[in-house]
Amino acid sequence: MTKGRLLYEGKAKKIFEILENSHQVLVEFKNSLTAFNAQKKGEFEGKGRLNCQISTLLFQTLAKNQISSHYQKTISDHEMIVDRVEIIPLEVVVRNVIAGSLAKKLGRSEGERLKAPLVEFYFKDDALGDPFVSDDQILAFEWATLQEIENLKAQALKINQILQKIFFEAGILLVDFKIEFGRRSNGEIILADEISPDCARLWDLKTQEKMDKDRFRRDLGKIDESYQTVYLRLKEVLHG
Amino acid sequence: MTKGRLLYEGKAKKIFEILENSHQVLVEFKNSLTAFNAQKKGEFEGKGRLNCQISTLLFQTLAKNQISSHYQKTISDHEMIVDRVEIIPLEVVVRNVIAGSLAKKLGRSEGERLKAPLVEFYFKDDALGDPFVSDDQILAFEWATLQEIENLKAQALKINQILQKIFFEAGILLVDFKIEFGRRSNGEIILADEISPDCARLWDLKTQEKMDKDRFRRDLGKIDESYQTVYLRLKEVLHG
Repeated sequence: MTKGRLLYEGKAKKIFEILENSHQVLVEFKNSLTAFNAQKKGEFEGKGRLNCQISTLLFQTLAKNQISSHYQKTISDHEMIVDRVEIIPLEVVVRNVIAGSLAKKLGRSEGERLKAPLVEFYFKDDALGDPFVSDDQILAFEWATLQEIENLKAQALKINQILQKIFFEAGILLVDFKIEFGRRSNGEIILADEISPDCARLWDLKTQEKMDKDRFRRDLGKIDESYQTVYLRLKEVLHG
Repeated sequence: MTKGRLLYEGKAKKIFEILENSHQVLVEFKNSLTAFNAQKKGEFEGKGRLNCQISTLLFQTLAKNQISSHYQKTISDHEMIVDRVEIIPLEVVVRNVIAGSLAKKLGRSEGERLKAPLVEFYFKDDALGDPFVSDDQILAFEWATLQEIENLKAQALKINQILQKIFFEAGILLVDFKIEFGRRSNGEIILADEISPDCARLWDLKTQEKMDKDRFRRDLGKIDESYQTVYLRLKEVLHG
């Protein structure tokens, strides 16, 4: 397996070509951390490794629960091989508890439990600040079809069900998380990107302490320790 | 008919009790004009009258086209009697052409025609700046049921069809408009509030000149003249 040229560099990952296999790419997890649409920047040693390891655990567990993803294998502590897919330009957010932008937008308290999980879509466009969009806007601008929207919502809710249970067993409340999906060439829609404390709100069940990127956004310190704890607790639950 | 106490004063209208009839209220159209969530304020002589007259024409025409509204009758040049309804806390926006907040949010040019009319919902809350909300958020916070959302969309699109035709005959492009709906005590959902250049984007078909509240928002002048032209042209089309 030969690492080819850099195809894309995002805020937290680099994507490289694989010379022998045009159907897969190599994902390298970076140590850098950004927030507020990249207006705030930081990094910590080991973040790339922890997010790669956490994503690996979660993609593998989801696969056992009939959730297909782009994940193929992890080849170093911060690199994985994934199937090449066309990313659907929507961030899919699932919320179990009100926090962050939803709390602000609706003037509600952080921590208020929703009656049922809520799925939201944000149009992936850094220049526009990833605006919140409705199903009808997604249809109007042809970012996805109605059938695809229904598929995304169903998958997101199923993933939430699986993840909520695992995190609960790890003593963590899954407040909300963001995932992305991609289309295979046959049209199949599968989970892509990553699942890590960079794109989720994770609160310790006992202490309510934040164990995710909000520690960085809100200058709470101990970011590396929190990510490390999330990884160790998940590993304990999933591999015993 | 005796005008009772003031029940509610909004940015553009006052609502009074009617002593003899608790099922109806009196709407008085004000001359004041606000924009950007009331951060910009103004007024012009005759605005209340023009909006009352335009709303009267449009409510009457919609009634002839099987669209029920709260409208009962106009009793002076700036006052109408309407049925008392419980206002659904959603601003329903219909767009035919991209403009205003949608253009800004998606980085698109004003004037780009949508392939099909687009319905959007905004949660009515001045303190929160009337945030844009999705169908799933409306359901999660129980502002309306799924059946009611479908009903609102269907009515909004039918109203758009009727209004587009009338405005076209008046030489005006109906770019977008905002309407509100109310529930009767039997649960029936009917059009309420007003329909006027305060809550619509109206462009002259020939000159593309704006004939609506954007003249105030963007300091384009000749607001009164524009509203007057809209009224006279609609009257010509509807009453010949």
